[in-house]
Amino acid sequence: MRAGFLGLGAMGYPMAANLRRAGLLAAVWNRGRDTAARFADEHGVTVADDPAALARECDLLVTCVSADVDVLAVVEALLPGLRRDAVVVDCSTVASDTARQAADKVAAAGGAFLDAPVSGGTEGAAAGTLSMMVGGDESAFAKARPALDAMGGRVVHMGPVGSGQATKAVNQVMAAGINQAVGEALAFAEALELPLERVIEVVGSGAAGNWFVNHRGPTMVRGEYTGFGFKLALHHKDLEICRHMADNNGGSLPLADRTRADYERLMAEGHGDEDISALYRLKRMLFD
Amino acid sequence: MRAGFLGLGAMGYPMAANLRRAGLLAAVWNRGRDTAARFADEHGVTVADDPAALARECDLLVTCVSADVDVLAVVEALLPGLRRDAVVVDCSTVASDTARQAADKVAAAGGAFLDAPVSGGTEGAAAGTLSMMVGGDESAFAKARPALDAMGGRVVHMGPVGSGQATKAVNQVMAAGINQAVGEALAFAEALELPLERVIEVVGSGAAGNWFVNHRGPTMVRGEYTGFGFKLALHHKDLEICRHMADNNGGSLPLADRTRADYERLMAEGHGDEDISALYRLKRMLFD
Repeated sequence: MRAGFLGLGAMGYPMAANLRRAGLLAAVWNRGRDTAARFADEHGVTVADDPAALARECDLLVTCVSADVDVLAVVEALLPGLRRDAVVVDCSTVASDTARQAADKVAAAGGAFLDAPVSGGTEGAAAGTLSMMVGGDESAFAKARPALDAMGGRVVHMGPVGSGQATKAVNQVMAAGINQAVGEALAFAEALELPLERVIEVVGSGAAGNWFVNHRGPTMVRGEYTGFGFKLALHHKDLEICRHMADNNGGSLPLADRTRADYERLMAEGHGDEDISALYRLKRMLFD
Repeated sequence: MRAGFLGLGAMGYPMAANLRRAGLLAAVWNRGRDTAARFADEHGVTVADDPAALARECDLLVTCVSADVDVLAVVEALLPGLRRDAVVVDCSTVASDTARQAADKVAAAGGAFLDAPVSGGTEGAAAGTLSMMVGGDESAFAKARPALDAMGGRVVHMGPVGSGQATKAVNQVMAAGINQAVGEALAFAEALELPLERVIEVVGSGAAGNWFVNHRGPTMVRGEYTGFGFKLALHHKDLEICRHMADNNGGSLPLADRTRADYERLMAEGHGDEDISALYRLKRMLFD
């Protein structure tokens, strides 16, 4: 397998590095050339001139970008060079509809498409332990499997194209609620003047234990929200998608809605680029 | 060390068994004699006639009961037989004030008291991997440590008497929020007609991962809420304690309050003895 990677952001960069370590990565492309050059330098792969050039030399293409419009644009840009039987794996978090549109474009050019959004933070991306929720044909999934396993610790096929993104939407709703739960509980602990590092250690190991309190609790209680993690404005965007999906299914997501409203307040105050744990700025005020 | 155990309930029974396996348990007492006899039979220890008789032959006494009034009653009943320098470890979940009252009684009789509530479910109790949040003197903590380690996987000294219970209150608030988060997300997944076992597997391994979705998710999506876990009416009682503590600190716990109200509705409908994951009965209705 010769894989190409497009989109060397906070998640994509370490994911591509894991593909390289597994001996699968041939070349990369990135909108910002400097980052691509740095990656090529560090990992000994070539930089393609454009997405189509990358597609010409690879039979697996992994994309990891930020927004729905970027996914469609990068897939469009791949098409002129796409080999027949190539598989395009998109690890971005976007709407299921976007995944289906991208899949149609790729299918029309003779390739197969998988939506494979991930969860596990920048830590999971670096360690190669990401959860990957994959939608698409069984045969394309089987073909891409070695690459998926190089980037993920738990790789699960969810169903047809779009079902990976639907699962990621469920993940983002759960993450929003957990952010609320952890923030409320730690604000309470702070008001009770408990030793917060120990609270995190012991509560994080019991029936209330969760990834978020273990990985973000220590920074939250120190008031550190930048230079790591998952941008609040991006989670907000995801929760907008979730709201539309819930609407379309005649339901509601009260806890995700609450979180979305809280994020909007934080974004208005200039905190949109901070990690989602910056929600704690508001939760702390419960005990002001 | 000769330890005695009082209160062989759903948590106490397996915790006492772990003390016995570590070679520390000499005798037990339980309000219901049949359970005590069964435990003695299975584990080869004696049954004391009453708490004072148990106290006479042990230098460490572990209590694990359901309510504040039970803790004070069982401690009171121990006192006539309490050895000087005995340590009483209460693993029940009660108010910090109750812990301090119990500690005063024990101190007046020459002993020391630790509040050591636990988290980790009946699974954690059976496996000896409970989180234990311990309040009390350093010296009493050091003395009790071998017994605590036999029952717990993460044993953390939080500060003076009462701080174990305060930490447990934080734990219960976090657990309430996570119950909401998991319920909302799985109801969403069900509405999206995703394969729920796989959703739990993959979401439970990423940044939204948590003990609750991994241990209770599979039963929730099958509509199973009885015969295991933590009774909803008991969590409701704990959240009442939390509300008073938040009031006393001039703050509020909106997500815990929401959960308390949801539990009240479920209790009124006869679900108080079910596991707290029965909250999912209501969350499912978000998409009705």
